[in-house]
Amino acid sequence: MIVLGREGFSERLAKELRAEFARIETKVFPDGESYFRISEPEKIRGKKAILVVRGRTPNLDQNRMLTESFLLLDKLKALKAKKTCLLLPYIPYSRQDREFLKGETVSVKTVRNLLKEKCDLLVNVTSHDFRKEGWIDKKTYNIDATESVTEFLKSKKFENPVVMAPDMSVSENVEELAKSLGGNSIGFEKERDLKTGKIRTFGKIPNLRGRELIIYDDVASFGETLYKAVLMGKKAKASKIICILIHVLSVYNKKFEKNSIDLIKDESDEYYSSDTIESPITKFSIIKQVSEFLKENF
Amino acid sequence: MIVLGREGFSERLAKELRAEFARIETKVFPDGESYFRISEPEKIRGKKAILVVRGRTPNLDQNRMLTESFLLLDKLKALKAKKTCLLLPYIPYSRQDREFLKGETVSVKTVRNLLKEKCDLLVNVTSHDFRKEGWIDKKTYNIDATESVTEFLKSKKFENPVVMAPDMSVSENVEELAKSLGGNSIGFEKERDLKTGKIRTFGKIPNLRGRELIIYDDVASFGETLYKAVLMGKKAKASKIICILIHVLSVYNKKFEKNSIDLIKDESDEYYSSDTIESPITKFSIIKQVSEFLKENF
Repeated sequence: MIVLGREGFSERLAKELRAEFARIETKVFPDGESYFRISEPEKIRGKKAILVVRGRTPNLDQNRMLTESFLLLDKLKALKAKKTCLLLPYIPYSRQDREFLKGETVSVKTVRNLLKEKCDLLVNVTSHDFRKEGWIDKKTYNIDATESVTEFLKSKKFENPVVMAPDMSVSENVEELAKSLGGNSIGFEKERDLKTGKIRTFGKIPNLRGRELIIYDDVASFGETLYKAVLMGKKAKASKIICILIHVLSVYNKKFEKNSIDLIKDESDEYYSSDTIESPITKFSIIKQVSEFLKENF
Repeated sequence: MIVLGREGFSERLAKELRAEFARIETKVFPDGESYFRISEPEKIRGKKAILVVRGRTPNLDQNRMLTESFLLLDKLKALKAKKTCLLLPYIPYSRQDREFLKGETVSVKTVRNLLKEKCDLLVNVTSHDFRKEGWIDKKTYNIDATESVTEFLKSKKFENPVVMAPDMSVSENVEELAKSLGGNSIGFEKERDLKTGKIRTFGKIPNLRGRELIIYDDVASFGETLYKAVLMGKKAKASKIICILIHVLSVYNKKFEKNSIDLIKDESDEYYSSDTIESPITKFSIIKQVSEFLKENF
């Protein structure tokens, strides 16, 4: 087995898997085309190859991540890899999963199908649509990163934590997470107005005096959902507010005149994101969990 | 038949073809994902659909052009178009057409194959590899834009023109072009040092006193080849120097501390590019030629 990728992440994954490693050399030509080279092409023939395509925020270039995937998977085939696995810890175009207005492209579906055709196994981490029927098959797998989150938070030894899920899609995980940490969970619903983009929240939360509030969400882009949750926590007098996210994107939030990562940093006491996207608040890794999955399934 | 696209170009093509037109609405989300919507989706069913994906320089985003092609072709299929044609006047990733160093991705090949799979006909204009064996088949067509160039230059009524091809790949066309304009052609060879990137030129050109020198090339990115040709023309005392290009990209040229388009503008008397890419020097159109091809072949 061989792991291919650009950054320390891929090397660490190779180590964890006791697999070989081949570095991807990369640059962007001034005319906008990207260049990729597998540094040791002679290593590929006959091997199971895991290609890691991972990005960095700010300025995550999701279109480039797609091109990178296509060009390198094609190259691995030309170099006669035995099987190919594409690991996209954060899968590009994971947002638009349905047609809100007639005529809109459903990018999640198109992108997923395109990528799936080009490899033997497509692996993502905690992607929004991972419970959607029909989108998951033998060739596609979404690793739910709650296990990595739990392990990381356990090491922090909170005294009296309560876990909150601002997005109902992770609420099941949140109950489990709270149990593992010896605390309990609360949830609130949000609803986004499709025209104005404003988020409306429902429900109240109990008094949290003397308790650490852990807010767990799968993805933050504008950071607005998280911000609302933090405000609720403050109002409820939580002793400490901890934000923990799988994927974090640094997107400029007009209303608060700062990017989402700064919003999170400024408004909470502790803030952590995983290494699915390299970010200024990346503090824990999904590598162990991913490697365990790959050992069993690839 | 229906033409789909974003800018005036696509509307004009539809008019020339006497076809319907449907506008593509588009935006970029702040997290980097692109959004596309076919404005009148009900128009598609049962029709032959021509999707135009065209960019603008500076900052031509070639990766985004690929994503746009994939998402919209998939949508056209979902909307039950009878047949699809993808028109990429400038095809993204048209540069790296072979493996210079072992392990490099051959992006031209991968991109072309990917796109071809997703439509019934793939049409490009003057792409670098268009004479390569095996890459052109029933589903792929490269329109040689020399016809459009000739027509445009004829309207300029030069008195005593001579046409020069700084790149041998267009030399055949240049002879024809010169004949049509009532002049003659000269050529010179260039060779690029793969390590340093420096361009070496061979051969001399005759005295051009009293003659208009037309320099014709298919693509300019850094503008360096063209610049060398202009210098040769000046040395040979041409009365006027005219640069004419199919595709022009505005790429910053470190050596001259300006972008390639400004280099062309500053160093020559007249400068024209086609509308395969929308640029500050776009002055003539390939629409008539493309429409004639499509009328016969789609």
